[in-house]
Amino acid sequence: MAAFRVRIVMNLNGVTAEERQVDLGEGRQHDPAFLAINPQGAIPVLVLDDGRSLVQSMAIIEYFEDTCPEPPLLPADPPGRARVRALAQMAVADGHPLVSPRVRTYLEVELGRGEAQYMAWSRHFMGRALEAMEGHLARDAETGMFCHGDRATLADICLVSQVTGFSYFGGTADAFPVVTRINAACMEIDAFRHAHPRAQPDAPKGQAPRPPATAA
Amino acid sequence: MAAFRVRIVMNLNGVTAEERQVDLGEGRQHDPAFLAINPQGAIPVLVLDDGRSLVQSMAIIEYFEDTCPEPPLLPADPPGRARVRALAQMAVADGHPLVSPRVRTYLEVELGRGEAQYMAWSRHFMGRALEAMEGHLARDAETGMFCHGDRATLADICLVSQVTGFSYFGGTADAFPVVTRINAACMEIDAFRHAHPRAQPDAPKGQAPRPPATAA
Repeated sequence: MAAFRVRIVMNLNGVTAEERQVDLGEGRQHDPAFLAINPQGAIPVLVLDDGRSLVQSMAIIEYFEDTCPEPPLLPADPPGRARVRALAQMAVADGHPLVSPRVRTYLEVELGRGEAQYMAWSRHFMGRALEAMEGHLARDAETGMFCHGDRATLADICLVSQVTGFSYFGGTADAFPVVTRINAACMEIDAFRHAHPRAQPDAPKGQAPRPPATAA
Repeated sequence: MAAFRVRIVMNLNGVTAEERQVDLGEGRQHDPAFLAINPQGAIPVLVLDDGRSLVQSMAIIEYFEDTCPEPPLLPADPPGRARVRALAQMAVADGHPLVSPRVRTYLEVELGRGEAQYMAWSRHFMGRALEAMEGHLARDAETGMFCHGDRATLADICLVSQVTGFSYFGGTADAFPVVTRINAACMEIDAFRHAHPRAQPDAPKGQAPRPPATAA
């Protein structure tokens, strides 16, 4: 989901990078060679031409916003920027981390829970995040064709990754009509559609974009 | 923890606001009157003079960064900004959401786990977030007296709230020497010390800053 977000932004900005896969299912994020790049053992990682590595999808996306101002992923006015960033955080902070591999491991090893309960847990928390987004989107006058007006922003990128993750765990976003409408509008855009996990040549799971970032 | 972060930033920026408490222990975040302000039912919320409400601590802090440029909470160079934002997300996304009231409820109601297991769960994931921060801080040349050089940034604000939350769940940060050193340096600063949950007049738990934000 996090690599999906970064791929969308790179597509929107027309930035290319050599992409390398890290198989989370096989635990490759814990390999010493990968930990040297990201001590947290998580994806995505963007390795710049000078060798520095950027981690955490929100930080990487804001890096592109800082270095590739077109198209803007945040509105110009500060309250609007706060609204877009808040919608993003509902997905990225309050949804996604609840379903990470380390949570799955804890549920299995420490709490003795199996696959079905991990899936139910994940549907629950991914759905709660979408419910939070829906509550704000349905209420706010700023909601337009997309989360904030009629251009895709950071919030839409996070919404799409959240809906995709939710469906991976068996959830359907029908209960969230504004979310569903915006997700469909986003998926009409090439930059979103081509970044989708299903559209990738191989690995449907963890993906790590890698150098050179021409924006670096 | 999230309100603690916002209080630090407001102290650093010299912004004052009427502060209202929301008792999370009693579930007051689910009251209809509060849900009208934040449909997600979470704190903190910053209500601007024009009535708009900003939510999610990271979005609120970036709002202050956008509107009160002194002191800067992010470095000027894009890779540095990405590093600071990434360290912040390790706490705010990968730590804090794992110990929210809704997680506690799910562990209790759906998985039949009690107080001791919620505390152990919380120690584990709050510690994992600090471990991730320590890994980057111990490795990177950019680490100085604070997380990024010799001035406190957004990363330090999140580090301090993370250490405080970890200790609430019975953890000690001794295993993370760089984190421990930086936390101590931050707590020498009035803006941090005065924002600490223990330094607040009443409620040790949920706190919601409220209007008027003079920065609005």
